[in-house]
Amino acid sequence: MSRLQLASLEPLPEVRPGDDLASLLLAAGADGLGPGDLLVVAHKVVSKAEGAIADLADVTPSARALELGATHDKDPRHVQVVLGQSAELVRAAHGVLICRTHHGFVCANAGVDASNAGAPDRLVTLPRDPDASARRLRAALPGRPAVVISDSFGRAWRHGQVDVAIGIAGLGPLEDWRGRADADGRELHATWIAIADEAAAAADLVRGKDSRVPAIAVSGLDRHITTDDGPGAAALLRPRSEDLFA
Amino acid sequence: MSRLQLASLEPLPEVRPGDDLASLLLAAGADGLGPGDLLVVAHKVVSKAEGAIADLADVTPSARALELGATHDKDPRHVQVVLGQSAELVRAAHGVLICRTHHGFVCANAGVDASNAGAPDRLVTLPRDPDASARRLRAALPGRPAVVISDSFGRAWRHGQVDVAIGIAGLGPLEDWRGRADADGRELHATWIAIADEAAAAADLVRGKDSRVPAIAVSGLDRHITTDDGPGAAALLRPRSEDLFA
Repeated sequence: MSRLQLASLEPLPEVRPGDDLASLLLAAGADGLGPGDLLVVAHKVVSKAEGAIADLADVTPSARALELGATHDKDPRHVQVVLGQSAELVRAAHGVLICRTHHGFVCANAGVDASNAGAPDRLVTLPRDPDASARRLRAALPGRPAVVISDSFGRAWRHGQVDVAIGIAGLGPLEDWRGRADADGRELHATWIAIADEAAAAADLVRGKDSRVPAIAVSGLDRHITTDDGPGAAALLRPRSEDLFA
Repeated sequence: MSRLQLASLEPLPEVRPGDDLASLLLAAGADGLGPGDLLVVAHKVVSKAEGAIADLADVTPSARALELGATHDKDPRHVQVVLGQSAELVRAAHGVLICRTHHGFVCANAGVDASNAGAPDRLVTLPRDPDASARRLRAALPGRPAVVISDSFGRAWRHGQVDVAIGIAGLGPLEDWRGRADADGRELHATWIAIADEAAAAADLVRGKDSRVPAIAVSGLDRHITTDDGPGAAALLRPRSEDLFA
């Protein structure tokens, strides 16, 4: 029998720029994790600790941000922060800006979020390099668990958001069964499983959105955990040239 | 502390049309599940038990199937089965047919799959009405656990597949935090969590693709489980009119 167990860590205090996130996580229960475990951390506390925030009072909207703000009934300063995080605006409709971030993630508002930001008129952006953030966090945790940094992304065609991995250290992002055989010995053509995204989604089930519980411990994924940090969430990005919905 | 636990049931024998799937699942360990538990079942065994299969020898491809088959290097009989399951061909490129099924799911090849089909030149299609299948299965399990029927879907913009819910009985498909407050008392505008999809993704982590272990027991989701069967996976479908990538 195969098993998976997930448990929330303790709530964290409000995280501020410059805080030592690893120490806060260790105090919240991450000290119990070992090299076969996975720690899934909501990106917001990573972003805050790294200072990946923007205060609206400091933002001067461009002409494009003013225009998009007027069209989509959004604060043009907020739109400016979103554009600053974006390599490309993929769609703008129904009051939603779907952006390709500088990292390559396609998501609403380039991952810029006002909720749980810690102050009014403050926005939290994605970490500048979430794979590097995950690697640093893993290196700073004495038990060396694998680390996934997650965010909630909407999906084309389906309602609601699911958490996905935006930063990974020490977990294989994808399990490749292409070319392997199924139970009948038939080749499994299309089976390429986004393990890290499924782990992020699983962790989100244990987390209340109104709580200060950003981190979830996962045990039972040993076979996907690697000593080296691996390719990170960058390996989950489909190149624009291969995408049917670019 | 919040917890989630997942465990695979025992492998099932090869499932054939007309088999009593509930009995097979009970013998595989579902007899231990109660009303606060969730059983996630890969759709393939549901489809097989319901006879949602197609043998290529019985299929005559249409002119369109012949044309698409030639263009995309696919067996035109396979393409014909895909078209028969589809309300709309959303994209056809890179040898992939992205279809909107008659149920409204947007996925590769309308969910038609040749792997683990039980016989050569046999295809497994999605259940005709997966929400009804989930409700029937729940009703047939004495412990009345919630039931999710899952399939692996690819995603726009990201590599790999994750499991999603295509049929649901007794689990709230979405948790709506829109209008509720975050930890700062600020409104959580966009937070609408696709619980059932996250549960399907979590269950997939416990399942080996080459095994005959289609069913995973999940405990710890009590707060999302309902006595009535609820709106099902139909509630997860974004209407075409609201979709930016139709």
